[in-house]
Amino acid sequence: MSYSPRLLSLLQGIGAAEGDRLTVSSDGRELSGVLIPHNEFSHPDVLVLKMKSGYNVGVLVTPSTNVTVAVKGEVRERVPRPLSNGKGLPQVAVLSTGGTIASYVDYRTGAVHPALSAGDLLATVPEIADICDVRAEAVYSIFSENMTVENWQQLAGVAADRLNSGVEGVIVPHGTDTMSYTAAALSFMLGDIPRPVVVVGAQRSSDRPSSDAYTNLLSAARFITASDAAEVLVLMHETSSDISAAVHRATKVRKMHTSRRDAFQSINAPPVARMDFGGSIDYLAPYRRKSDVKVVPRLEMEKDVSLVQFYPGMSPSVFESILSKSRGMVIAGSGLGHVSSELIGPIRRAVAGGTVVVMTSQCLHGSVNLNVYATGRDLLSAGVVPGGDMLPETAYVKLMWVLGQTNDAEEAGKMMAADLRGEITDRRAMQ
Amino acid sequence: MSYSPRLLSLLQGIGAAEGDRLTVSSDGRELSGVLIPHNEFSHPDVLVLKMKSGYNVGVLVTPSTNVTVAVKGEVRERVPRPLSNGKGLPQVAVLSTGGTIASYVDYRTGAVHPALSAGDLLATVPEIADICDVRAEAVYSIFSENMTVENWQQLAGVAADRLNSGVEGVIVPHGTDTMSYTAAALSFMLGDIPRPVVVVGAQRSSDRPSSDAYTNLLSAARFITASDAAEVLVLMHETSSDISAAVHRATKVRKMHTSRRDAFQSINAPPVARMDFGGSIDYLAPYRRKSDVKVVPRLEMEKDVSLVQFYPGMSPSVFESILSKSRGMVIAGSGLGHVSSELIGPIRRAVAGGTVVVMTSQCLHGSVNLNVYATGRDLLSAGVVPGGDMLPETAYVKLMWVLGQTNDAEEAGKMMAADLRGEITDRRAMQ
Repeated sequence: MSYSPRLLSLLQGIGAAEGDRLTVSSDGRELSGVLIPHNEFSHPDVLVLKMKSGYNVGVLVTPSTNVTVAVKGEVRERVPRPLSNGKGLPQVAVLSTGGTIASYVDYRTGAVHPALSAGDLLATVPEIADICDVRAEAVYSIFSENMTVENWQQLAGVAADRLNSGVEGVIVPHGTDTMSYTAAALSFMLGDIPRPVVVVGAQRSSDRPSSDAYTNLLSAARFITASDAAEVLVLMHETSSDISAAVHRATKVRKMHTSRRDAFQSINAPPVARMDFGGSIDYLAPYRRKSDVKVVPRLEMEKDVSLVQFYPGMSPSVFESILSKSRGMVIAGSGLGHVSSELIGPIRRAVAGGTVVVMTSQCLHGSVNLNVYATGRDLLSAGVVPGGDMLPETAYVKLMWVLGQTNDAEEAGKMMAADLRGEITDRRAMQ
Repeated sequence: MSYSPRLLSLLQGIGAAEGDRLTVSSDGRELSGVLIPHNEFSHPDVLVLKMKSGYNVGVLVTPSTNVTVAVKGEVRERVPRPLSNGKGLPQVAVLSTGGTIASYVDYRTGAVHPALSAGDLLATVPEIADICDVRAEAVYSIFSENMTVENWQQLAGVAADRLNSGVEGVIVPHGTDTMSYTAAALSFMLGDIPRPVVVVGAQRSSDRPSSDAYTNLLSAARFITASDAAEVLVLMHETSSDISAAVHRATKVRKMHTSRRDAFQSINAPPVARMDFGGSIDYLAPYRRKSDVKVVPRLEMEKDVSLVQFYPGMSPSVFESILSKSRGMVIAGSGLGHVSSELIGPIRRAVAGGTVVVMTSQCLHGSVNLNVYATGRDLLSAGVVPGGDMLPETAYVKLMWVLGQTNDAEEAGKMMAADLRGEITDRRAMQ
């Protein structure tokens, strides 16, 4: 979409061109930034300015907005620079999936749509071409709440192909709603990988002043090329300031705030690393190193798995009906991993019938321990597998994957209790 | 249960009596404390010592343990002191319900049982009689994961009676697993109250060295007598150190760790107050003051309410079958309050049929906002009630209560969206 006739004539009237520094003032608020090309999805009355911070800011120009040229031709080359100038640099595959990081605001309705192509997405971060040779492709473009098992399988398959073709790493821009579920799924499906897969999101769309899309994408590229880590990781803002990114292990991270940019938190483990936006990396935990291993993805997943939070007053009949439709169930129990006594009979019967039931805690922090209280011991004797300090969501994804690998409930239970991808960090509770 | 013959003869041999300071050493570890009466549920080889910190420590005396009398008759009166010496002090009702705070370790099995009577419980905190005239009674003795709607109703009924009879406050010792659910239920059922109801728990049983039962109970009594606050509150350790208690609003608190003593955290709001164990109180938020209002409890609750966490891969048929059995459902959606598109049809049909569906976020922190993304707008148009920054668990308890007060779904929706007991603190997202 191009500029509106009004904005086009305003820009022509003041002689503004791409690369010029403009000053825009409205309602006593003044912004200064370099004019970059209008996004095809932006409102026709929006100017996009690149700020000194690197952020792209979309500014709605109304009849009362004052726009002047502050510096003519401050940036000489075209902004954004073409992405093909990264030849000779390490290759990084960008597999976009949709979500806020690739979204734009529809200024007619105020709603956000997932629509930027992989190329559009990268055009908002031209500096990425100085770091790596980007190979961008859109695997799909959906909001992450609509992600399915098939989406995970397709994404893992493409990521495995790209890793095996020798890229230095894979960036997966993803909606934040279910980003940690997808990251965990990639981690279990891909197994040993030679180079990192960095899942990255944004809490604010890229045409908003406070967007974290730019720094998170750029930091992912920097991390892949500068680090020797080779795991599935989630990279997001570490704090609400624009200082650093936290690089989380895929199986230990959870979205813990609806809107803050530092919403993602490692639970029961430190992040793998902190990377400041200048590029320096502090490692906070042990991690797997880059290698020449070939990826042998194992994509099979059992879909009849449920994740159920226990609460007082939960209906035993509703609970048993969910259980009867599940080959596996992860319970987010109370405290150390409890449910009410009346649910233990249904669990015992389901386990006897071959269903795998795994206990985690709705507290999220800390480990389950089924040896302390009578209820826990009853659950153990009913055949419940204690999930240690696994997040309920990670245990859910893992159980789908485990039941895709084996039909044997006992073997599945052993796999659930074993630490396969760093998902269980407190070994004490598993003994 | 009395001492074992071996321990009894050891104590007699060294001339040890209650009130003496003993030194106990074993495996290079040495403890010093005043001998207090043996708990009837303790192992016959356990000595119970009161430490300088006020904690009661149970010490298992094995044949290799060395026990000596350090100070004869350090405490002259019998320990614990009789509780009836509080006459003239403000009356406080203690309504015990079971849980770790009233539990003991069965040293044969290592398991913890909920069994201390209200009197036994208070005997571990003799200092409470210097603060108030305690009227202790056991309403029931169960682990809190077995708490039912009927338990909440019975407890609220007794609490209302005691408040109306003029006590200065009510202490409810409670298991921590579902303590925040019960506290929220009391808050909705009791409404306007003249004096505080302080729900208090322990993460470690009272015969363990690190028990928080002692300080939490004592702090609850101090808070009731020293503060002018009159709400349903949850009082637990503020940090993992023995420095202070946090006093949380019942509707904003959640157990966020399986085992730490500072497991309880106010979410989306500061605690109402911080009280250091010396007794001084810092108020951190506005609160309702003590008054002469009569409590008019409203105990009716609808049981056919469910709490469901959304996750990718959730089966629409399982979801719809839960919905079909529910007069109300609270969804812990992803991010700002989302579910996959395929669940929106079932929600629309259920709402059209009179089911009340309320959206909260599994992120826990932050508010839902159904106006940002297309999915949220679709949910709004399907008739979902946005839950603001309410905790999913609080919204679940509230919905049971609201549907107990009205059969009208529209009226119920309005009540869910209104802040009734401080459960919604972010008004912006509700507009």
